[in-house]
Amino acid sequence: MTSFKLLTVSVLALTLASCGAQTELSLDITNEDTIIVSDNADVKALSELALSKGYGYNITKSLTTEIGPRLAGTAAEENARAWAVAKFKALGFENISVEPFSVDGWERGVETARITSPSQQNLFVTALGGSVSTPRGGIEAPVAYFKTFDDLANAPEGGLDGKIVYISGRMERARDGAGYGPANKKRRSGATEAAKRGAVAVLIRSVGTDSHRFPHTGQMRYAEDAKKIPIGAISGPDADQLDRVFATDQSVTIHMDLNTRATGAKMSGNVIAEIVGSEKPNEIILIGAHLDSWDLGTGAIDDGAGVGIVMGAAKMLMDSGLKPKRTIRVVLFGAEEIGLKGGFAYVDAHKDTDLANHILATESDFGAGRIYSIQAGAGEENIAGVKAIAPEFKFLGIEFQDGASTGGPDIGPMAREGVPTIRLNQDGTDYFDLHHTPDDTFDKIDPEAMAQNVTAYATMIWLASESDSNFKGE
Amino acid sequence: MTSFKLLTVSVLALTLASCGAQTELSLDITNEDTIIVSDNADVKALSELALSKGYGYNITKSLTTEIGPRLAGTAAEENARAWAVAKFKALGFENISVEPFSVDGWERGVETARITSPSQQNLFVTALGGSVSTPRGGIEAPVAYFKTFDDLANAPEGGLDGKIVYISGRMERARDGAGYGPANKKRRSGATEAAKRGAVAVLIRSVGTDSHRFPHTGQMRYAEDAKKIPIGAISGPDADQLDRVFATDQSVTIHMDLNTRATGAKMSGNVIAEIVGSEKPNEIILIGAHLDSWDLGTGAIDDGAGVGIVMGAAKMLMDSGLKPKRTIRVVLFGAEEIGLKGGFAYVDAHKDTDLANHILATESDFGAGRIYSIQAGAGEENIAGVKAIAPEFKFLGIEFQDGASTGGPDIGPMAREGVPTIRLNQDGTDYFDLHHTPDDTFDKIDPEAMAQNVTAYATMIWLASESDSNFKGE
Repeated sequence: MTSFKLLTVSVLALTLASCGAQTELSLDITNEDTIIVSDNADVKALSELALSKGYGYNITKSLTTEIGPRLAGTAAEENARAWAVAKFKALGFENISVEPFSVDGWERGVETARITSPSQQNLFVTALGGSVSTPRGGIEAPVAYFKTFDDLANAPEGGLDGKIVYISGRMERARDGAGYGPANKKRRSGATEAAKRGAVAVLIRSVGTDSHRFPHTGQMRYAEDAKKIPIGAISGPDADQLDRVFATDQSVTIHMDLNTRATGAKMSGNVIAEIVGSEKPNEIILIGAHLDSWDLGTGAIDDGAGVGIVMGAAKMLMDSGLKPKRTIRVVLFGAEEIGLKGGFAYVDAHKDTDLANHILATESDFGAGRIYSIQAGAGEENIAGVKAIAPEFKFLGIEFQDGASTGGPDIGPMAREGVPTIRLNQDGTDYFDLHHTPDDTFDKIDPEAMAQNVTAYATMIWLASESDSNFKGE
Repeated sequence: MTSFKLLTVSVLALTLASCGAQTELSLDITNEDTIIVSDNADVKALSELALSKGYGYNITKSLTTEIGPRLAGTAAEENARAWAVAKFKALGFENISVEPFSVDGWERGVETARITSPSQQNLFVTALGGSVSTPRGGIEAPVAYFKTFDDLANAPEGGLDGKIVYISGRMERARDGAGYGPANKKRRSGATEAAKRGAVAVLIRSVGTDSHRFPHTGQMRYAEDAKKIPIGAISGPDADQLDRVFATDQSVTIHMDLNTRATGAKMSGNVIAEIVGSEKPNEIILIGAHLDSWDLGTGAIDDGAGVGIVMGAAKMLMDSGLKPKRTIRVVLFGAEEIGLKGGFAYVDAHKDTDLANHILATESDFGAGRIYSIQAGAGEENIAGVKAIAPEFKFLGIEFQDGASTGGPDIGPMAREGVPTIRLNQDGTDYFDLHHTPDDTFDKIDPEAMAQNVTAYATMIWLASESDSNFKGE
């Protein structure tokens, strides 16, 4: 493995260094020590190369500026697909295609909420994705307070007739986003549990870690037998305020007016492009991100960053002059936010053709923070294959991490079909400050962290393409 | 002076330490070195005393929770006056009164803006205070870009017929808020200058230092002969986005709909309460803050914090058992935000009675950050008097600062009538991140910084009350 490592990384790095305007860079990474022990000058040089050429960063900028928000099933998401096709073409990709599929359309209108007693105070609110609308004129009702989702789920049935249920409870901040799952229960199932007990509507404290007055949206679900009642999220500071108001006066009433509508069957689609492999064109290394976003922000960290990272990494490899043996396939999934629709559609479209030829798959969908670890999916050979290339990432500050990863949300469905996966885990400490809010905008992205991501993905697809492993062991 | 210093500060500190639950605190500040050289243990002890009793912090919490936003001339501001009267009474103040005055009412309704070409993108916008409304249905027009206010003001007259003027330009961050004045020109005079050149409306980049998607409101003015056109502010990230859009495509159109209305003559008022002086009751030490706030947030840093600081400091002195010789007058000004109306009304109401007896006046109206310096107003004796007490503040990390201060916005009018002033300058590095936005909420306040403020104000009013100087030299 040693000579392989030396060859691949040094060739990639040196070739990248010589093809740009940065000819003055002297990347001294021709001996193993320098590669493995992570010399700061190398990290700096490689990242600066990615940085100076804006691989990734400028793609994210283009998408979020020229298209902006791109909710699944809307004209904006369609515009984003047209943008992606044009961008892939301009960057020199091959086999560009759109694979369409249908989704249930949903859109929001005006949304307001305010405390009407014991004082008049506006609340910053947003409807959760998929929520039914409040009746015309909104709902005004006394509020039943629940500290956590579990308190609601464990409460006796009934007793909340005519009430608005409010579920408080904070999300924990963590580098790997571990707080998201537990906090998300109220978003997913709050309406179903409240309706069971007679409530007419639900407000939750946003699933997020910030202290700004932005509500966080996100998809909710009604259980099949559930009465459908509207559900919205209020911002963290508004939840703090409501908690304080409750601490002084239990008889709180709220007026809420969430105008939403189901718009029927709408078109979405996955946009796909390739660098065709030079020796094993039928073997596919898939790197993906999702093209759709929520409607409130411009989808910069979620997931314009991922779009920039995977398109930029493939373009960086292309520009290096290196010819990957296997095919690098970039997939921009549609309609991820409303239920991984693109991930499922991709499996449907490919399971009878080339899905078995997917050597390795991953998605970048956790913001624009630096990558700190590399992780494999399930299976002995998947782990062995990823472990074999992992040391090459040390120069970027990336370590091998034990445990299985699905490879990312849209990769889950293909992983369940046996596609080996890999994940480059990003630092998500601040991710849920912005996630699904109006504040998810391009100014939040650090170009240096983007450059590290792009460099890591370029390194990964090159090494995976050259690897003797098929990551499957079959 | 030495014995005076020793006496006053040590008595205050020791008395405070012995009157609360903190009897275990041993404040070793009985020798001058300890006082002057700022022993950390003392700072900690005093601040912890203020902190543990929540002087100030709990008052701000009560105002912002129970009343919330309190725009000048509204029922909410009236509720805030009722709250203030009740709070002063509960805290044991004397001579509680409301001095009413009339203001021009103004309120906002629904406000929206969006880029309509080259792509559809919402902008987070708010009307500036005093702006006229857009016509029913809003205005859609091509946008004329100006990098700065000066670029607009220096442009030839005419040439902007039917256009929406957009003024970009960032505010500089500074501890003393020095960036505010220059940035504020576009807010104050943007509409007048744009109308002169034929524009139909104006959007400005918010006067603020943050990168969150909150627009900053604030009062605007029409020149007397100006055509009145609507003016709003967009958030920093929205201005960034608009700048990026302009960089790729000059033919931008925007639809904006700012619903505002002048509501006619409305009541506002100053709320006043005292600790009557034990020896010179006619001599007044005035500490103020403003009770009104903008309507978007809950007015926590602007100026719920100031309200808490001055009420809390006077209450802290009261609880200490010390009896100030001079009268401590706490004034909560009304309608500061719409043009220092309370400050002017105070002078009108007092100029023929006790204004000449005002020994020293100051206002806390720069957020909840720590105080770093103490500054005098104009005049030899004002400076000498403040300089004499300044060393007593070193234990709180506060230094004497040269140069004249007006004492705060609402103090300006009385300073011009000859009232000596003092100012405790707060660190405002982050103040304009939140100023006049929906994000100005109670969760942003650091209780430890509040405690330092309250302790400093309590120290100041005690020393000013005991001082032999009248700060005037007459």
